[in-house]
This record gives sequence, C-alpha cells and structure tokens, in this order.
Amino acid sequence: MLYSKLFTKTSRDFPADETSKNAQLLIKAGFIHKTMAGVYAYLPLGLRVLEKIKQITREEMNSVGGQELIMSSLQKRETWEITNRWDDKIVDVWFKSKLKNNTEVGFGWSHEEAIIEMMKNHITSYKDLPANVYQFQTKMRNELRAKSGIMRGREFVMKDMYSCSINEEQHEKFYQETILAYHRIFSRVGVGEITYLTFASGGAFTEFSHEFQTICDAGEDYIYIDKAQKVAINEEVLTDKVLDMLNVKRENLEKIKTLETGNIFNFGLIKSEQTDFKFTNKEGKEQLVWFGSYGIGMTRLMGVIAEIYSDEKGLKWPQSVAPFEIHLVSGVEKDEEINQKIQDICKQLYTKEIDLTTEIEGLNTDYEILWDERNTGLGSKLGDSELIGCPWQILVTKRSLENGGIEIKNRATGETKVVGL
Amino acid sequence: MLYSKLFTKTSRDFPADETSKNAQLLIKAGFIHKTMAGVYAYLPLGLRVLEKIKQITREEMNSVGGQELIMSSLQKRETWEITNRWDDKIVDVWFKSKLKNNTEVGFGWSHEEAIIEMMKNHITSYKDLPANVYQFQTKMRNELRAKSGIMRGREFVMKDMYSCSINEEQHEKFYQETILAYHRIFSRVGVGEITYLTFASGGAFTEFSHEFQTICDAGEDYIYIDKAQKVAINEEVLTDKVLDMLNVKRENLEKIKTLETGNIFNFGLIKSEQTDFKFTNKEGKEQLVWFGSYGIGMTRLMGVIAEIYSDEKGLKWPQSVAPFEIHLVSGVEKDEEINQKIQDICKQLYTKEIDLTTEIEGLNTDYEILWDERNTGLGSKLGDSELIGCPWQILVTKRSLENGGIEIKNRATGETKVVGL
Repeated sequence: MLYSKLFTKTSRDFPADETSKNAQLLIKAGFIHKTMAGVYAYLPLGLRVLEKIKQITREEMNSVGGQELIMSSLQKRETWEITNRWDDKIVDVWFKSKLKNNTEVGFGWSHEEAIIEMMKNHITSYKDLPANVYQFQTKMRNELRAKSGIMRGREFVMKDMYSCSINEEQHEKFYQETILAYHRIFSRVGVGEITYLTFASGGAFTEFSHEFQTICDAGEDYIYIDKAQKVAINEEVLTDKVLDMLNVKRENLEKIKTLETGNIFNFGLIKSEQTDFKFTNKEGKEQLVWFGSYGIGMTRLMGVIAEIYSDEKGLKWPQSVAPFEIHLVSGVEKDEEINQKIQDICKQLYTKEIDLTTEIEGLNTDYEILWDERNTGLGSKLGDSELIGCPWQILVTKRSLENGGIEIKNRATGETKVVGL
Repeated sequence: MLYSKLFTKTSRDFPADETSKNAQLLIKAGFIHKTMAGVYAYLPLGLRVLEKIKQITREEMNSVGGQELIMSSLQKRETWEITNRWDDKIVDVWFKSKLKNNTEVGFGWSHEEAIIEMMKNHITSYKDLPANVYQFQTKMRNELRAKSGIMRGREFVMKDMYSCSINEEQHEKFYQETILAYHRIFSRVGVGEITYLTFASGGAFTEFSHEFQTICDAGEDYIYIDKAQKVAINEEVLTDKVLDMLNVKRENLEKIKTLETGNIFNFGLIKSEQTDFKFTNKEGKEQLVWFGSYGIGMTRLMGVIAEIYSDEKGLKWPQSVAPFEIHLVSGVEKDEEINQKIQDICKQLYTKEIDLTTEIEGLNTDYEILWDERNTGLGSKLGDSELIGCPWQILVTKRSLENGGIEIKNRATGETKVVGL
C-alpha cells in the first residue's frame, strides 16, 4: 500500500484521555479510534492486525475440528432465564433494550446458552457427536469501568468455541487438544513464551478451571509461577493441597502480574443438565451432552501484544500479526538523478521485482509492503515508521546508495544492514 | 468438507413460524438459525455464502480505492445530536441502552455521523483528500415488524462505504465509479440482469437519489422499468418532468415488484455543513468536504439470492456464492467390491487427483467439495443435495459406473451427463 493513500495520520501527541499504554500507542499511530471509554473502532492498520490474529486463531480452531458460524448479538430473555443468567443481579454486564412491543432484549456478552439452544435443533443422536463450533463475535459488556484500552472493552471481539461430546473420554480429549491449540495460537502471535496455562478456581462447576495468563505489567491478575517446571497457579487456589497435587514447592514460586488472555471452562454435564441438552445413545436412551467452552479475546490479545511489543518510539509488531511486513521509506533528495534512482529501486521493491525473501530470513513470499512515498522530510517518515512498527524497515536514500544499496533495519532489535542490489 | 462432519441437519419440514421463502428455505437447509423475529445466526453453510458475498463486495470496494475499517456498534448521544438523529421521533429504529452511570448509548443503525466524527481526526488538509472508507458492520434496527426473513432484519450485516472528496468533480467521479462497482457486485453474485439503477426521491438532500432495485416477488417496492433502455424509476418520482428528463415514454414502462438491494446517497455538502466537516485548501482557506454514502445489505442480498435461486426442491446457488461448488454424493451398495470402487473414485475426486475443471466449464481450480459420505440411502442424500443447492452435483453410484463413470448434474438446469474417468 502507498502511504499517501492511507487516510489515517499519526499524531504527535498521546491522546489526553487514555491512561493505558496500548490505547495511547494505537491511537497515536492511527490503528484505532476511540468512540467512548472501552469502545473503539479499528482503522485500516488496526483492522489488518486484528484480522491476522483472527486468521491464526481460525486456522488453529479448524485444526481441532471446529466449525465456524456466527450467532446473533441480540438475545432473548427466555434463552438466559433457564440458567438464571438474565437477572442483572447475577450477571451485571448486560446491555438491554426493548422491541417496539416492549419485549426486553439483551446484547450478547456471552453465547453459551444461545449456542446450546441452537445446537438442540441439530444434535439429537449419538451420530451427531462430537460437534465443535466457534465464532468471532462482537461481545457487549456493560463494564463499570473501562480504563485498559482495548484490553477490556465494553464492545470487543472474542473467539468463543463450544464443544459437544458424547462421553467424558471424547470431552477430555478435545479439551486437551484445545489447550495445545491455544498454546499454538499464543506462540504464533508472539506471546507463547510468556503465556502460562494456569490453575484457577473452577467456580460453581468444577474444582479447577484453566486460564491462559500472559505476563504483562498492565495486567489485572497475579499468578505464581514455577518457571523451571512451567507450572502456574492463580492466587485464589494457592493452597498446600494444590501445591502437593502439582508437585510444586512454594519457595520455587515467583509472584508475577499477568493478564488473562484465554479461559476454558470444562462444564462437564452441568450446563447440559441446566438446559436439558440431551442426545439419544446407541441403546435408544437419552443422555446428557458433555459441554465445554473456550474463549480468547481477540482485541484483548491485540492490546497485550501492543503493550509488550512496544518501546518509547512506538510499536514493534511480531511479523505474524504486523499490518505490513515491510515499511519502505524512500528518501527525497535534491539531486534529480539520485531521486530517480531511488524511485526506480523503490518501485522494484514494491512490485517485488527485487525480492526481499532472500535478504530477510523468515519472510514469506506473500509479504506486504507499506511504501512511504510522500514528499516529506526523512526524519518525519522515519518517526512514523518507528511508531507504526512494522518489523522490517527498508530505507532507500542517497546515503544508503552511497553505502552500497538499501538499508534493512529490524524494528525490534534495531539491527541494521546494508544490502547491495 | 465431509458431510458427516457438518453439524447442521436439514429438516423435513419448513419452519412453522416463518412466512418468507428465504428464511423457510435457509432454515430447512441448515444455513441459518432464528434467534427471534428478524434476528438470525449464520451456521457454517450460511456463513460460507455470506463470506463469499462479502469477499466479492470487498474486492469491488477496494477496486475503487476504498479502505476497510470497522466502526463500533455502540454509539454516543452527542455524535447523533448534531444532526438531530438521536431523537426517537426522527429516527424510530434506535436500540438504546444505558451505561452504569446512566449515560444513554445507542447501537448503530447507520454510521454516517460516526464516520464523519472519526474522519475529522484525519482529514484536515486538501492533501488528505480523497479518502474513501468502508466497513462490514452488524447494524441494529428496531423494526416494528420483521417478516421478510434475512431480507429485513433487526440485526443484519451491511457494507457501508463513505466518500470524502475535495470538490464536486472528484465527488461525482467517485459516485459514478461506485455505481459501476455496484453493478459489478450484483452481476458477480448472480442478480446483475434483474437489478436496476433506479431514480428515486432524494429526500431532504437532493432532488434525486439512486437505488439499486432487484426484481423479486417478495419485494417491498414497485418500480417502473423501460426494459429496452434499461431505465428504472421509483413510483414516488414518476412524473412527466422526470419522464422527459430521462427521455422515457410512459407507455414503454412496466410496473414491477422489487426489493431495494443497494442505496447511494449523494449528500454533496449537506452532511459536512451539518457536522462542520472541513479541510484547509491550497490557499489556506477552510472548505467543506464533499460527502457520499453507499450501502448494500449483505444479508439482505443473500436473502434475495435465496428467493430467486430456488425451486420447490430447495436452493440453487450461483457458483460465485455457493457454500461449495461441488456436492459429491457417493452411493452405498450391497456389493463390497463396487462399494470399494465408489470409495476410491470419491477419494480421488475429493483430493482433486481427479480434476473436475476439465469437465465443468467455468469451475476455478480452487473449487471446494462437500462430500456426502454418509452410510445413508441415496434418496435421502440426493434430497439433501437438492435442498442445499450447490451448483454441481456429482454422483458416483453403481448405476453411474455401469453408465460409464460419474454423473455430473447441474442443479440449476437439471442437465445431467455421465463422464468417463
């Protein structure tokens, strides 16, 4: 893409009304726009990042046999009364409104009950199981406070998957496979090393549940990590019994601030019991469906990545989720002949006549380029490039030509090399 | 995809609570699920169709220079009060709710005001123009009645594009280019021949606006068409003056029922005047931005296609938007040897070892196959295949083998041919 065609502009200052680093940076760099606290629009650069995170997640959900669908945001009262979760005293994040005939409707903050209601039309026999479905849904949650940028929004994009299994064995197998798929997602988007599968309280359902917690200064939780064993325990379940169970010594634990990036609920039969979600088994008898629910906040994950992959100059995206792999910056020189040469080289880079995969390790052949061809001072262009944070900056200037070719800079490490043509 | 892995089931009967053909068919075939009147979930088959329509639209919006983004659904009062469109007496389709601090919020039924508010942060100079943006947004509209299935929903997916131009010339040029892009979209999804650019009332803004009206028995409008000249006029502006202007004779007009599938608003300077949307021109003076708005209902378009491309047996999707190009049906025979042969051939078809592009004209090499490998009677499998309506049915049965190979049936025309291997 040509930079001059991109309608968004970077701004010189941080937005005054944001306290979170992720929103400050993403607004400054033109990735997002704030509609109100906790509610953001995703502008072209931001949407590109979000879609890349979604696509990685989609691939991994498909790899465990998930089928993509999209539920509605509008929810009816009856669906949620069955489990008592329509009540604002029990679920305090509902946005509700009314139809013209005064019927109350809600906007989906979760979709477990809605999924089960829909699945009942399709799952009736043992032949229909397993069935695993997922969606990328814009959730609405009426949060009291929303000060964490896109890490905790009133409107946000979530990937939620639901598993329906025939028995405990099938259920547990899928649950474990999904844990592995989640690890792959976090790893592919660049936070694998700092994301821990964490033992947490299971709430009303089971003794323990699993959270994925990512180490992050702006986090909201504390977990205890045994780094050598890669075991993590949420503060709320840190008892001697749990330590024994996990074979972990208290003195080896490190307390660390984290953000919950994924959560999986092993409902077992509880949800199906509440909602009467049954199938007919081989013997013709009715049986409850084993049910699980698996979530990752897509926009939250983008926020965490922005928090972690950034410095005082701006963002520094991992290649897998960067809006563009390459940010090409062309110098504007006084000498017309040199200018022409710069233009020629940049055009060849932009059309991939000059192929960068041979110079940059790990670059896929379908790499995309943002070419800053504006007739603007180099300093300002470089500043924008640092702020936007594509992983590779390519400089074509009078100086780079004098040095023998084009300059390739790694945004994350700052390493620079000049490559001949 | 293997049919047995698809969790949705076709049902024998039409849903009792649907009067519209599109919803009846789409629910029966397992493409959508009804949450409540006018609110539908898109199940795997339905989501595939919707995404194909979106992708075609995306390509055409990109081709005229549109930049994709996504605004928020949640809207704040102030944004809409500027144009007086927060008032429920003026806009009667708002869904509204309240934050915890009692601040009223709305759910976007349109995004013109929100787009302008956001664009003001990025468009300040003549250098920033033109700027054209679009989104695929889930709109919420509190419709009094919702009886047209996915053709008129309380929650639906819309592609809305907005153009910001520097002067009338640039504005008109983009407006005309978008009309052509819209024609291409309607043509690519299979309704080009029956979709008319229609002169309609411009409301408060201009004398005329342009609608795209698609001939459809289940439509809500009447238009007058001169088929020879391909000119269409909405009932509301059918005056002698307009007839003269368009050089059309009243006796050549045919009255016909249609559904509005696209609408474009040539706001000129009106919206910018209302919202004080200005830029600084080359002379350093402030000037109003020329503004246009261009919408196509994505789910509505899917509904129209379902209405038009269907018969008493079910759906018959145009290839460009079909959930799968190929519905492969394998016979289950008593003779084990024949069964094995059928399986072998089907596997080769499924993995594309046997390539169908040489046999089926117009099939792209990236075609996708739904293989009904269930151990079920052929009659029921064929019935499902007719109902789901992929454009090409491939039958591999004992009979087809006896006839010399595989049977290829065109779902739309019913034409059948046997092809040797």
